[in-house]
Amino acid sequence: MKKFLGIDIGGGSIKATLTDREGQILEESKLQTNPNWENHEFLENLVSLISSFLSHSISGIGIGSPGPIDIERGIIHYSANLVNLKDVHLVSYLQERFSLPVFLNNDANCAALGEYYFGAGQGVENLLVFTLGTGLGAGWVWKGELFNGYMGNGMELGHTTVVMDGALCGCGKRGCAESYFSARGLLNRYEEKSGVHLDSAYSFFELVRKKEPLAVSILEFGVRVFAECIRNVVHTINPEKIILLGGLTASYDLFEEKLKTRLQEIIFSVLYTRLKIELGGKVAGSLGAASLAF
Amino acid sequence: MKKFLGIDIGGGSIKATLTDREGQILEESKLQTNPNWENHEFLENLVSLISSFLSHSISGIGIGSPGPIDIERGIIHYSANLVNLKDVHLVSYLQERFSLPVFLNNDANCAALGEYYFGAGQGVENLLVFTLGTGLGAGWVWKGELFNGYMGNGMELGHTTVVMDGALCGCGKRGCAESYFSARGLLNRYEEKSGVHLDSAYSFFELVRKKEPLAVSILEFGVRVFAECIRNVVHTINPEKIILLGGLTASYDLFEEKLKTRLQEIIFSVLYTRLKIELGGKVAGSLGAASLAF
Repeated sequence: MKKFLGIDIGGGSIKATLTDREGQILEESKLQTNPNWENHEFLENLVSLISSFLSHSISGIGIGSPGPIDIERGIIHYSANLVNLKDVHLVSYLQERFSLPVFLNNDANCAALGEYYFGAGQGVENLLVFTLGTGLGAGWVWKGELFNGYMGNGMELGHTTVVMDGALCGCGKRGCAESYFSARGLLNRYEEKSGVHLDSAYSFFELVRKKEPLAVSILEFGVRVFAECIRNVVHTINPEKIILLGGLTASYDLFEEKLKTRLQEIIFSVLYTRLKIELGGKVAGSLGAASLAF
Repeated sequence: MKKFLGIDIGGGSIKATLTDREGQILEESKLQTNPNWENHEFLENLVSLISSFLSHSISGIGIGSPGPIDIERGIIHYSANLVNLKDVHLVSYLQERFSLPVFLNNDANCAALGEYYFGAGQGVENLLVFTLGTGLGAGWVWKGELFNGYMGNGMELGHTTVVMDGALCGCGKRGCAESYFSARGLLNRYEEKSGVHLDSAYSFFELVRKKEPLAVSILEFGVRVFAECIRNVVHTINPEKIILLGGLTASYDLFEEKLKTRLQEIIFSVLYTRLKIELGGKVAGSLGAASLAF
């Protein structure tokens, strides 16, 4: 049995999972991060985490990290959570240290791969995964392979334009899907109209649950934008199944019906009829990361 | 030397080209179509056209046709030019008749493949081709293979939404890129604002050349929409090169600069810097169709 180590670099912790090709969890370990770590401290801690698994014969290591990263060269450029990191040459360092194949990819791509191997996307030839979190991310698994695009740049579906000249997005451009349908987008649109700064997507959805008119109308518009974003990707790469992940899916009951009704209206019917959309999220990020090394 | 027969089903004629893998034209033939042909007349004429090449040893036949077609089952559902055709089971019929492998695909896909093998897209790993004609079509060649998507449905980039709730498109939905940037889109937008029905894209671009303010502003808006459509596909599948084909490219001098300036503003710079955009069109459609059989 070949064993693979998956590492998920998260907000406040780094999680490592030893698994096999069937996704069986053989051993797990977790490490709290210090937000002020410099490159060498980050690497030393990672090395000691990995070392704790060395009693096993490991065939490869897969690492998932938020961007911006360079997949081909195996570099974490910087990190919103570990603010002192700068161009960490993670893959070459660990490869040399452990003489093992090491793979790095962004967390949305790892999530997509995790769903493909072990989750709601098993056996799906053309699988698209959206991560609905602070931002709007996506990963695509096509014929069993993660699509990394030219030079290892993945999908940026959150930054596709749906409302030309619309709301200002965090990326500096206007009308991106993310600026209407993501935690950040919904909160920004709410603050723009009410002057009230909500502290989390949870607070926003609580207002929707209480039928607060502004929150309801902002969610409705956001869902319409997300529907067009899905239309665009369906009319472009034609996925067979779309899986939704991330914090916003905790409130799926508040937007599932509106989303599906709208999708049925705007996607070509030959494509919509066989499109499946469902929630995922039962697969750990570290398991998805491990599958980078399969 | 293996020989392949490529067939391009065009507006008023069907063109057949015998070629080799290098795109050398070995023999050509053309047939005028009758717009009233029924299925059996269409097939008989096609058979006699193909038969005229049978003195050669042919390894395969590739056929390009406007949609809607079923690529996997090899069916032309119907045709805007041959109005009496209905569900022509082209591939199975010709395969049985000639005992040869036969492939059918839509004309935009064949054009993309033609550019990849013999035109401006030679050797490009991730190549996207737009056909700017009556409508707005596209074909994608990824790692040497035409992307047909799930169940053989190709790209519908013309029907991706850029202006949510915008102008009514021929597809019945609103805000599609095609409804602003295609011959039909530009003429419809012009008629909507002026009440004047222009007979061709050529007339429209002549007005732009004369700096007629309405035509100029409609083209400018159309180019901005097309730029966002390109942004979306670049942020989705990350092509290395985009080739523009079709009637509208005859007026490329009127919009190239504005298009490129806008693209530079809105596409992530890491992706824009290495993106090449250029005109193609030197490869015959029948040659692209032949390459389906390679």
